[in-house]
Formats: sequence, structure tokens, C-alpha cells
Amino acid sequence: MRVLHHWPLDPFSRQARLVLDEKSLKHTLQSEAPWEQAAKLQALNPAGNTPVLVDKTTGTPRVIAEARPILEYLEETSPTPCLLPGGPAERAEARRVMDWFDRKYDGEVNAYILHEKLEKVAQGLGSPDPAMLRMGKDHLRWHLDHIAWLLETRDGLAGPRYTLADIVAAAHLSCVDYLGEVPWDDYDVVKHWYQRVKCRPAFRSVLADRLPGTPPSGHYADLDF
Amino acid sequence: MRVLHHWPLDPFSRQARLVLDEKSLKHTLQSEAPWEQAAKLQALNPAGNTPVLVDKTTGTPRVIAEARPILEYLEETSPTPCLLPGGPAERAEARRVMDWFDRKYDGEVNAYILHEKLEKVAQGLGSPDPAMLRMGKDHLRWHLDHIAWLLETRDGLAGPRYTLADIVAAAHLSCVDYLGEVPWDDYDVVKHWYQRVKCRPAFRSVLADRLPGTPPSGHYADLDF
Repeated sequence: MRVLHHWPLDPFSRQARLVLDEKSLKHTLQSEAPWEQAAKLQALNPAGNTPVLVDKTTGTPRVIAEARPILEYLEETSPTPCLLPGGPAERAEARRVMDWFDRKYDGEVNAYILHEKLEKVAQGLGSPDPAMLRMGKDHLRWHLDHIAWLLETRDGLAGPRYTLADIVAAAHLSCVDYLGEVPWDDYDVVKHWYQRVKCRPAFRSVLADRLPGTPPSGHYADLDF
Repeated sequence: MRVLHHWPLDPFSRQARLVLDEKSLKHTLQSEAPWEQAAKLQALNPAGNTPVLVDKTTGTPRVIAEARPILEYLEETSPTPCLLPGGPAERAEARRVMDWFDRKYDGEVNAYILHEKLEKVAQGLGSPDPAMLRMGKDHLRWHLDHIAWLLETRDGLAGPRYTLADIVAAAHLSCVDYLGEVPWDDYDVVKHWYQRVKCRPAFRSVLADRLPGTPPSGHYADLDF
């Protein structure tokens, strides 16, 4: 059995969930807010973060912490379907796009929008700061421009095939979309790519998420939005 | 031939240099400050960052951008010596430690100390802010405690063998050490680990770095400090 310790609106947890479902790997989800379960999570991951995968399908249970290690681990141990296809150069390009979202987008968008609208509220740290939110929204537009450029210059985010790069990008965007912050109508190319991703069966679980006290935007779960 | 576009005091560039040298892969170094060579770097890497590896040893030159993709690429294409040894669980643990340094340590230490003492000065953005520097130094002490704990509970950063986790950690620490900011004498276990890493032939190149206008700390290149 596999248990994934996750938080529903954590873009890094969502990456792990999407890959588990793409590969049809049975698992149970254990929801933990990092700020409420610090000691429990720290025993599994020194950083005290979600996601953590506990894989009990092998002899000794394996504890795999953090999204990127989980994604690479699942790719190594359950290679079908392959989500890092092609040769070394194609895999490097997929990993570059993953890095872009996990470091650059995370610091420029999540650190503003998710922090202000989700983390601060959930932790009782006050209401969102409009200046910080505005900055996050400006950065988000810049990133949507960049995603559109990628999609226009190649057939897919990191190449013609569906890869971990699409999953990582969609996991991040799906969280700001839950909050209704993505101006889809200004970004047709990105919208069409996200519509295709959203239709994948592996996406159903994240579209069913409902955070108590914070309902999703009206179109969040619509496949045709 | 391989060309690595790097900036000498960039901890991510240093990761790529150390791995190229560990694997004895011939390359030339092309130094570029990201704030001076924005257009040139952006043509190679949309994020405009170092490092970028241009690998011309294959038919068509391959452009591999960002440290993590470069490290995984070199591990795939030049697997000897192996720097991600063991089974999937050991590799996942090495990647978890790499993530720790590239995201957590980077945001809590580099974003304060390297930003204040190197990037701001090099870009003419003013002198270091003492409050920011103090915060970076406090975070650094917390990280050194954590590294000591890792080294005391296992024989090596991510296990008994020398892995990419040691290289990534040493690349990050070597930059603050250049600036004389590491209180080594308070962290014996970490100091002994870093001494062993520093003695590796692959480390010679980074110990020879000299940034115009910013000389290294007195002990920076000493193997016995």
C-alpha cells in the first residue's frame, strides 16, 4: 500500500497525486496542513512539508519526501506510462520547465497569491494584503505570457508528448485557478492546453477538492470553461 | 566539446562545475554575470540564469539549462563515476537533500547573504543591509545545525557514499565561505565533512575562483582550515 501525506491546495502535493493517478498506482491520501501537523510531518520530512509518500509495497516501507524526489522515484520504479519520454536532451528540457515552475513561478506567484489567500487565512495571520496580491497577479500574467510563448513555439510545454513538465505546470496553475485568479480569456493558447490536461482521468481527484471555508471558483471543475 | 556558461560565485553554476570535474568531462568555462549578459543568457535559457551547458560532443549541440537538469543529464549520459548510487530509495533521499539546499537553503541563506554581499554590490544596488545580513547569518546557523544533525545520524549527507547531495550542499556552502560567513569552529562535524569534500580534485577549480573587487576569506582555499 502507498500513503501520500498531502495538503489539497499545495501545488507540490498535487504533482505527486497527478503522477500516482497517471500511473494508476493505488494509494490513499492523508490530508495534513503543514502548520497544524508540524511534528508529525517533520518525523517524515525534516522540512516539515507535504508531500511525503510512504511506499509500503516493497519489503521495508520507504519514505520519500518532497515532490521532485517522489516524481523521479515513481518514474524509476513504475516506468509505465513514461512521463519523461525521449532522450537525455528531451528529459533535460522537461526538467528545466519543472524547475521553472518549482522555483521561479513558486517564488513569483505562489509566494504572493497562495500565501496571501490561503496560508495566511488558514493560519490566522490576517487578511490578504492587496498590494502583495496585486504583485502576484502581475507576475502570474507574465508567467501566462511565457507559457503561451512555449506552447506557440513547440507542440506542448516541453515537447510534443505529455510529460512531467505539463503535470508540474498544471499542478501549480490549478491552485490559483481554484481561487479564480487565472484570466483564462486573455490566454487562449494556455486555456486550450489546460483544457486538454483537465480532461485527463488523472485530474479528477484534484478537481474534486473542496477546502472548508474556501469554495472553488465557479468554473474550477468544469472541463469546458 | 562542452561549454559551461556560469558565474563563479553562483552556487548553482558550481554544482555543474563540480559534477563535470568529478566525471572528468572536458569543458571550457564561459563566465557571464546574469545581470550583464541578460539577452545572451536568455537565448540559451528563458530564465536568463546560469548555469547553461552547451554539449557539442553529440551530433547536434544540446543546450541544457539550470543546475538540476544538468546534473541529471550528466548522470544519465556519463554514469561513471555514479553520483546517485544505490536503489530508488537512496536516490530519492539524495534528491530530497538536493531540494532542501536548492529551495529552502537558497531562500533562507543565499537570498540574504549572497544577495546583499554579492548581487547588490555587483549590480550597483547599494551597500548590504545589516538587518538582512543578520537574518541570513541566523538562518545559516540553523542550517549548519541541521547539516550537523544529518551527518551525526548517518555516515554522510544522504548516506555513506559521496553523492550529488554532498556536491549540491558543498556548492552552496562554498559561496558563503568565500565571503567568510561560515562559523566553522562552532560546527566541527560539518567542518570535517567540508574538509573531506574540499580535498577532492574536482573542488580545485572553485577554490581557485577570484572575484575582482571581492577577494575571498583568508582560509577559503586552505584544505586544512
